[in-house]
Amino acid sequence: MIEMSESYLPIQLKAKILREKHKLLPNIMKLSRIDCWLIFVRETSTTPDSAMNFVVGSEVVAQSAFIFIMKKDIVRKIAIVGNFDADTERNKGIWDEVIGYDLGINASLQAKIKEFNPSKIALNYSLDDYSSDGLTHGMFLVLEEILSEFKDRFVSAQPIVNTIRSIKSETEIGLIKQACQLTEEINEKITAILDVGQRETEIQAKFHEEVNVRGFGFSWPRVQNPAIDAGKDKDYGHVLPQETNFTVEGQTLHNDFGIKCHGYCSDLQRMWFFGKKNELPDELRHAMDTVLEAIQLAAKKIKPGLQGYEIDKLARDYIISQGYEEYKHGLGHQVGIMAHDGGCMFGPLWPRYGNAPKQVIEVGQVFTIEPNVKTKNHGMVSMEEMVVVTPTGCEFLVEPRKDFIYIH
Amino acid sequence: MIEMSESYLPIQLKAKILREKHKLLPNIMKLSRIDCWLIFVRETSTTPDSAMNFVVGSEVVAQSAFIFIMKKDIVRKIAIVGNFDADTERNKGIWDEVIGYDLGINASLQAKIKEFNPSKIALNYSLDDYSSDGLTHGMFLVLEEILSEFKDRFVSAQPIVNTIRSIKSETEIGLIKQACQLTEEINEKITAILDVGQRETEIQAKFHEEVNVRGFGFSWPRVQNPAIDAGKDKDYGHVLPQETNFTVEGQTLHNDFGIKCHGYCSDLQRMWFFGKKNELPDELRHAMDTVLEAIQLAAKKIKPGLQGYEIDKLARDYIISQGYEEYKHGLGHQVGIMAHDGGCMFGPLWPRYGNAPKQVIEVGQVFTIEPNVKTKNHGMVSMEEMVVVTPTGCEFLVEPRKDFIYIH
Repeated sequence: MIEMSESYLPIQLKAKILREKHKLLPNIMKLSRIDCWLIFVRETSTTPDSAMNFVVGSEVVAQSAFIFIMKKDIVRKIAIVGNFDADTERNKGIWDEVIGYDLGINASLQAKIKEFNPSKIALNYSLDDYSSDGLTHGMFLVLEEILSEFKDRFVSAQPIVNTIRSIKSETEIGLIKQACQLTEEINEKITAILDVGQRETEIQAKFHEEVNVRGFGFSWPRVQNPAIDAGKDKDYGHVLPQETNFTVEGQTLHNDFGIKCHGYCSDLQRMWFFGKKNELPDELRHAMDTVLEAIQLAAKKIKPGLQGYEIDKLARDYIISQGYEEYKHGLGHQVGIMAHDGGCMFGPLWPRYGNAPKQVIEVGQVFTIEPNVKTKNHGMVSMEEMVVVTPTGCEFLVEPRKDFIYIH
Repeated sequence: MIEMSESYLPIQLKAKILREKHKLLPNIMKLSRIDCWLIFVRETSTTPDSAMNFVVGSEVVAQSAFIFIMKKDIVRKIAIVGNFDADTERNKGIWDEVIGYDLGINASLQAKIKEFNPSKIALNYSLDDYSSDGLTHGMFLVLEEILSEFKDRFVSAQPIVNTIRSIKSETEIGLIKQACQLTEEINEKITAILDVGQRETEIQAKFHEEVNVRGFGFSWPRVQNPAIDAGKDKDYGHVLPQETNFTVEGQTLHNDFGIKCHGYCSDLQRMWFFGKKNELPDELRHAMDTVLEAIQLAAKKIKPGLQGYEIDKLARDYIISQGYEEYKHGLGHQVGIMAHDGGCMFGPLWPRYGNAPKQVIEVGQVFTIEPNVKTKNHGMVSMEEMVVVTPTGCEFLVEPRKDFIYIH
């Protein structure tokens, strides 16, 4: 049996992801007109550079340089690491060259850069984009010393880092799908023991037990994962599970739940109703149908080449057309090694989302679709599904829910 | 029941640690002659600054500044955060002032620095010390723009960050002690099911089950945690648990195991012998006695004001005096939110340890003591205990082991 855990990813699967991601590099480097990408790190368990997940795939201790140099459309890949880490890199089989050092990295790094003499040296820093900003300032200063004669060639690697993270490989999509399935398994298991009169905190604790026993991690901090919202008066997304708030006959329960397994995340919202289907208030029926239809409309519109805000607008306009206030956030975000994975989002053109909703949808990106509405008398209704972008549209990662789950 | 997990720390306990750490600041800032420490971060779940664990204690999303300014021996503490994060900071009760912003941080940050006009502005970057290097280069550039008229006052905050991390507060020591106790609980539980003919991988899987079911995390990556070494031919510390290596009658089993609970780590080594005490080979008896005595000698010598290498030398010399080769690593390292927590170490004055063994031992630091020896015919013997430095010496965090655990 393969062990499931937040962090454990079988080495063969990890290597497969790295090879898949490396295959994207020639095209990405060509489009971004960067002929050298240099990742420079040390002690990555304390100061990680999240870009390493996609092209290096392990931790290092001593100062290490991972260099991708393009000459004539071919990317040459070089790892310069402390001797203690060298075998790990060699065994991956993803590097054209692994150079181990004992005393210091300076000589090997200088020699390689001189040998290839790139026109630019792209480093992982960015003023705007946090997920491309993994290089620490101390390590930048170290690099300025080592490569002092090249420092006027330093540029931001943001275009490379954004794209390599955002476009999920086949194996990554498989892992995200698996995380979604495992999330639904836990949702089903908890469904069987839900009842009226349960505290929100008590329900969250049951979810935590199921996550713990399976060795999974959480897509976001467990104190708010899953979010648990019982009854008509709860304001979703802002209030933690309460000791003093209970599930009530004739009212709803909502969760927002994401697990992390093998390093990849899920993020799904589900809803329960305490009562029979024919006892569901009309307001809740209409609200749920509106949310489900908004999800379907968005999913049908998604395709590569559109901008993120176009998807948000369709769902938002539909919800307003049904007599509800618009939701106060974006319709969806990307998911990957983090629940909020950055890059293009399905969001309105509000200042707080910056450039993200204007970015273009690409094949292989994984998004949530999560509209919600507020009813007059029965509280909020919210659902969240996940999709992967295909060449012609998108596919749901797990079967989308078609209604409340009825507990009676 | 308080939930146990890697990351969950009850909010009151977290707040207590923050208050304890803040109390250290006036003295630390005075000794390091720094009148302003500025932590500048964003989206800390992707690009964390580990120093935040000790003085902020939560994640932030938008650009945030945490400022500690000393005037006349009093430290004033100010948090400038996005409005979405402002209530979290206010509720902690650790800030003299919390400023929330909607549009951007620039105006508030500039105003506060102008108001106090510090002579230095210490930032979390360091060329030498990775654990003081949490500021990303992109954020440094952002800060240079915002505080352009103060940028010649920027200095490294390394002296502050090192000390605030290294000196454990009462609550932190309690949590590390708890992690040690829980580790021993699992060791005891596994002892009951150990037998000859078990694979190393199988034994590791049993430890993983026990960790998972309790919701703990691992002090270092689980693939090598616990290290499991069966029999006389295993080279500790370099080879993962093997499918093809079994526990054997008349031979030893060794583990190196650390869990993380409530954010704090343990790191302990234990040994088992498959046979009765009177069947133990003389070589193993002598090796174990030597290791145990080396630990006791080191523990008796430890006191504030000594340098780390003095402790290592005592244990190392003793082991050589007993006819063994010296161990090929340091005698001990600090433990805290990481298994290797940086700062002063008990190590020899070898180039690879840099300045760490020369640093001075201080009250409140937590160290491992982990000597090992190699016998001629029966493999290695290694044990690891953890101690906290007191004003007059040190105390063990759990009762030190006095022998192998005998399985028969």
